[in-house]
Amino acid sequence: MTQPGALALVPFVSVDHMMQIVHRIGIETILTGLATAIEDDFRRWESFDKTPRIASHSPEGVIELMPTSDGDTYGFKYVNGHPKNWKDGRQTVTAFGLLADVATGYPVLLSEMTILTALRTAATSAMAARHLAPKGARTMAVIGNGAQSEFQSIAFKTICGIEEVRLFDIDTDATDKCAANLAQSGLRITKCPTAEEAIEGAQIVTTATADKRNQQILTDNMVGSGLHINAVGGDCPGKTELAEAILHRSDIFVEYPPQTRIEGEIQQLAPDHPVTELWEVITGKTPGRSSAAQITLFDSVGFATEDFSALRHIDGLAKETGLYTDLDMLADPDDPRDLFGMLMRAG
Amino acid sequence: MTQPGALALVPFVSVDHMMQIVHRIGIETILTGLATAIEDDFRRWESFDKTPRIASHSPEGVIELMPTSDGDTYGFKYVNGHPKNWKDGRQTVTAFGLLADVATGYPVLLSEMTILTALRTAATSAMAARHLAPKGARTMAVIGNGAQSEFQSIAFKTICGIEEVRLFDIDTDATDKCAANLAQSGLRITKCPTAEEAIEGAQIVTTATADKRNQQILTDNMVGSGLHINAVGGDCPGKTELAEAILHRSDIFVEYPPQTRIEGEIQQLAPDHPVTELWEVITGKTPGRSSAAQITLFDSVGFATEDFSALRHIDGLAKETGLYTDLDMLADPDDPRDLFGMLMRAG
Repeated sequence: MTQPGALALVPFVSVDHMMQIVHRIGIETILTGLATAIEDDFRRWESFDKTPRIASHSPEGVIELMPTSDGDTYGFKYVNGHPKNWKDGRQTVTAFGLLADVATGYPVLLSEMTILTALRTAATSAMAARHLAPKGARTMAVIGNGAQSEFQSIAFKTICGIEEVRLFDIDTDATDKCAANLAQSGLRITKCPTAEEAIEGAQIVTTATADKRNQQILTDNMVGSGLHINAVGGDCPGKTELAEAILHRSDIFVEYPPQTRIEGEIQQLAPDHPVTELWEVITGKTPGRSSAAQITLFDSVGFATEDFSALRHIDGLAKETGLYTDLDMLADPDDPRDLFGMLMRAG
Repeated sequence: MTQPGALALVPFVSVDHMMQIVHRIGIETILTGLATAIEDDFRRWESFDKTPRIASHSPEGVIELMPTSDGDTYGFKYVNGHPKNWKDGRQTVTAFGLLADVATGYPVLLSEMTILTALRTAATSAMAARHLAPKGARTMAVIGNGAQSEFQSIAFKTICGIEEVRLFDIDTDATDKCAANLAQSGLRITKCPTAEEAIEGAQIVTTATADKRNQQILTDNMVGSGLHINAVGGDCPGKTELAEAILHRSDIFVEYPPQTRIEGEIQQLAPDHPVTELWEVITGKTPGRSSAAQITLFDSVGFATEDFSALRHIDGLAKETGLYTDLDMLADPDDPRDLFGMLMRAG
């Protein structure tokens, strides 16, 4: 085997590395760091090249590419969403991502992002809630107790001061799994037999279900004044979680309108229905929550800048901990114009 | 370290593997196999999801994602184009690509594509020329003797029966390198001091220069009747190689018009200027070359299906030769809905 040169190598964070990084740093510290990194990048929203993700739909699911760039660093994520995957022992969502140097086009990091997406989605939700949820919120309902539920719970505890989570899923095994996973988290856990009971006394409701169709996880009469709704599960065309009437009573906050209007809860509304962009709230350009009675809705679909921020944060931690390996992914001939010569000499 | 399960692993073809595959199989056999795979996929053109590549431009270059799907398999390529990269010892073009299973969204192959792109670009050019070049063409001029030049030369020898290549580059070192690399190829090599001399007696002219601006590598008076022009270098907005007058005298063949009208030589023409799609020629729907005097122009920019075909071909060869490694790139919890539990148990 020919020894590849330094320019040929791309640092790679495997699933095992990612798990080790989380344990080395601590999941709460990671979530807090991610929330800060994501918020900082929302603060400089205008410096990013933004485009709705490029989706390839099929009857079973969707495969998406989510690119962005801040002019110095380019990043993209590959992510799928296949709601029936768990039946064959597969994840609904898997992902990986890449950072590259804009000046040379050379990749500088390849990373697993199945775990990282779960972390960044939860960190984004909690960061948004810090701006939108009623002051003093201590109880959150979590409807849909699948792969996102524990990450959301820990993020809201760490970042928003949530003390109790009230769990509901149509599948009680999922609720049992979530409750068991959170047993040592310091959160008070209540398993609820219905969504209505889960919402009782909650100031925040997180919906995170995986089914790929238009559902009504929350109906209009379940939503009282003052609530903050963190709608995570509705994130592609034909996949929503909230009754339309709720949207008309809510002030709606979104990441990137051209993408959310296609993928989010607001796909149910007219294309000119007023929404507020999250970055405007973060920079103070537009108020977030302005009254205690207001219903705020974060219509989260996940945006490319969040993955960019997450990859940059993990890049720093990977270099700091040494938890990565180098992949021989780029050709590196002695004379860069002599790719053919490199190939032939390897023979 | 936790041992990842089988579902977590993605076969990875490194640069070293790719070079070993080329030597194990033989470069001429690889090029012929790629040309056949690419042609077969052009033949079923209508079964592909097609979209122009998603480009992120900067002053120094461009980073692009090129996705496509045939409904069963999804593929995409990451590729950059940075003309000044060679000054720091880097490649102008580097690339990697991925195949995934549409039914599950799970990646099934990650591969280097710097070498593979060079091979597939040459194979596509030669395959197109088999349909478009004058019968009995034996001499090709190659203008621009950089990283693509040897691949083009070998592909045209193997696939089209070219016996002589006439080389020209404004940088004579590049010509010397190309000639040296082709010394054992079985081709007759002529180094030419001017582009005009390179074209003398040639039935095919390949232009493959890297400079990112509008140039006139070929001026109108250099192009006589009966020529086939294989224009490879003009492949992004603001980067062309041919004088506009040549385009008006040529029958123009393109891969995917919505992309070529932005990136190809025809960016110089009106948006409704008539062009023929290559797949129509390959399927016999539209004639290719119809007279000996006709000037045919393959305005090549590279399309996502060519990378898809190339990745599938290499996937087969990698499995056949065992020349790949497995990457721990996907999270694989015992219970697919218990990503958090997997993460915590790894601690």
